[in-house]
Amino acid sequence: MKYLWSTIIGCFVFNTNLDIIDNVPFRSSAEYLHREQTEAKLSKKYPDLKPLPEEKIAGVLLTLKNPSYFRAFHTQNLELTKIAIKNSVTEDGFILQTIANITEIDKVSNTLSKRLREWYALYYPELAESVVQQEKFVELTLTKSKEELMRDAKRTETMGADMAKVHRDEILLLARQIKGLFELRRMHEQYLQKVMQEYCPNLLELAGTTIGAKLLELSRGLKHLALLPASTIQLLGAEKALFRHLKTGSKSPKYGILYQHPLIQKAPKQERGKAARNLADKLSLCARLDYFKGEFKALQYRKELEEKFNP
Amino acid sequence: MKYLWSTIIGCFVFNTNLDIIDNVPFRSSAEYLHREQTEAKLSKKYPDLKPLPEEKIAGVLLTLKNPSYFRAFHTQNLELTKIAIKNSVTEDGFILQTIANITEIDKVSNTLSKRLREWYALYYPELAESVVQQEKFVELTLTKSKEELMRDAKRTETMGADMAKVHRDEILLLARQIKGLFELRRMHEQYLQKVMQEYCPNLLELAGTTIGAKLLELSRGLKHLALLPASTIQLLGAEKALFRHLKTGSKSPKYGILYQHPLIQKAPKQERGKAARNLADKLSLCARLDYFKGEFKALQYRKELEEKFNP
Repeated sequence: MKYLWSTIIGCFVFNTNLDIIDNVPFRSSAEYLHREQTEAKLSKKYPDLKPLPEEKIAGVLLTLKNPSYFRAFHTQNLELTKIAIKNSVTEDGFILQTIANITEIDKVSNTLSKRLREWYALYYPELAESVVQQEKFVELTLTKSKEELMRDAKRTETMGADMAKVHRDEILLLARQIKGLFELRRMHEQYLQKVMQEYCPNLLELAGTTIGAKLLELSRGLKHLALLPASTIQLLGAEKALFRHLKTGSKSPKYGILYQHPLIQKAPKQERGKAARNLADKLSLCARLDYFKGEFKALQYRKELEEKFNP
Repeated sequence: MKYLWSTIIGCFVFNTNLDIIDNVPFRSSAEYLHREQTEAKLSKKYPDLKPLPEEKIAGVLLTLKNPSYFRAFHTQNLELTKIAIKNSVTEDGFILQTIANITEIDKVSNTLSKRLREWYALYYPELAESVVQQEKFVELTLTKSKEELMRDAKRTETMGADMAKVHRDEILLLARQIKGLFELRRMHEQYLQKVMQEYCPNLLELAGTTIGAKLLELSRGLKHLALLPASTIQLLGAEKALFRHLKTGSKSPKYGILYQHPLIQKAPKQERGKAARNLADKLSLCARLDYFKGEFKALQYRKELEEKFNP
């Protein structure tokens, strides 16, 4: 009677006294990952080979405590960890980075747009007052001359100075850069949609690109999102208000980032809390369907919710 | 005997009883700005016309208090203020906005570069460790493939995942945007140099583009900088440390942004305070020379300072 025990450094065959009588070391992590092949070969060589019973493991471990194995354990361990890190990069990672970057771009393009407004005001201050939206403002500075803008606004005079082209051009360089950031944001959104279409179609359908991705970001990935209770999903993004509630007894929050969802936005004010609870319920189901590669049900969920809260 | 008095709404001719006997209203602010022409015409018409003596002004003002003039005063005042605002836009404004935007770009490109490092680390994490400088990092991600980077670093394995092109491309979109920001910063610097070459050549020569522009920003323009005492210039940018010193009695600061100046950087440590004082002295002279359109002496100042502190 012989025992077979596989470790990350190789397959060992023990006799009943737990002495090593055979040993096939692994020369690469690939051999460990496909250890069944080696085990099959050894089973052929020793017809009376059995898997090591659990009560013998302590004894076997003592044998392997021999320092001669340390180096092999260390190297192989490192190797396997690297492979694990490599494999840990999934769609989750891409989605998380993209949505985090969208948040970053929003902040950054807002900072630069404010600077552009101030700078452009030397030239034509009236534009900043009449155009509130940042992207529109950037677009107008790039596509229209001061004369055209004044004609469009039926304005005959401006407090802005006449500026030589060299000075105006410098402002437009900034505007062009901000425009690029807005374009990058749009491309990120398209990319997100494409990735999520494959990876979590249910979540995408019910939550939409941005909110879906933010839910994944806040829950640190689809697996965790699928494991969260619906009540937690309902409050993702409202952590600050939740802890304030717990600490000071202020009103408990009704929704976190779900507040931005069109279903909640369109619901009558007094029904929003209920709508958020129902939406979170269905989102939780969606995340589970997606994680376990289930069918596509989100469209039906969405219709049900819309009929209920946005009649 | 008649008196002439010009106001923003027109030229008035008074008799000795201070009744209005003639009045040429200005129909535009241009006429007010060239009022000498109107005054000359009236002088021809009334050979005994004299400027209004100071002691009569109170009486004349009472006459003009008549509500019939209010509207004209209001309109004309608004008009002139607009012109004043228009004319207040000078090189100071351009320089201030540009250097403020450079500061903004530094912050923004740093934020986005950190995001790029994190995102790119899914693909090839080892690069972020070995390349510290942000611009270099961005450039490498754009110009070299993972294989080339690994070959350059004599690396045979990576913990990074293999990624489909669609995912890598999304990262590179961000890198390209950051590269654009770095380029914008460089163009701003060139532009600053060109503007300052004309506007404040002495300050530019002695302080350099960035420090010179920052001094203008901190002092809110060349005029104010020219009026500041050298000791204040020495501490521009060290306001926080200065007030801490005044409030808590901590050490007084020796320099603000002048600390970044090569002259101070190259000076022996115990002489830096003295070097900053001397540099601020000369910078103050430079600002005055520039503001009053004096000669170009900065080169000579720089040589003197360098001989003294960087021998």
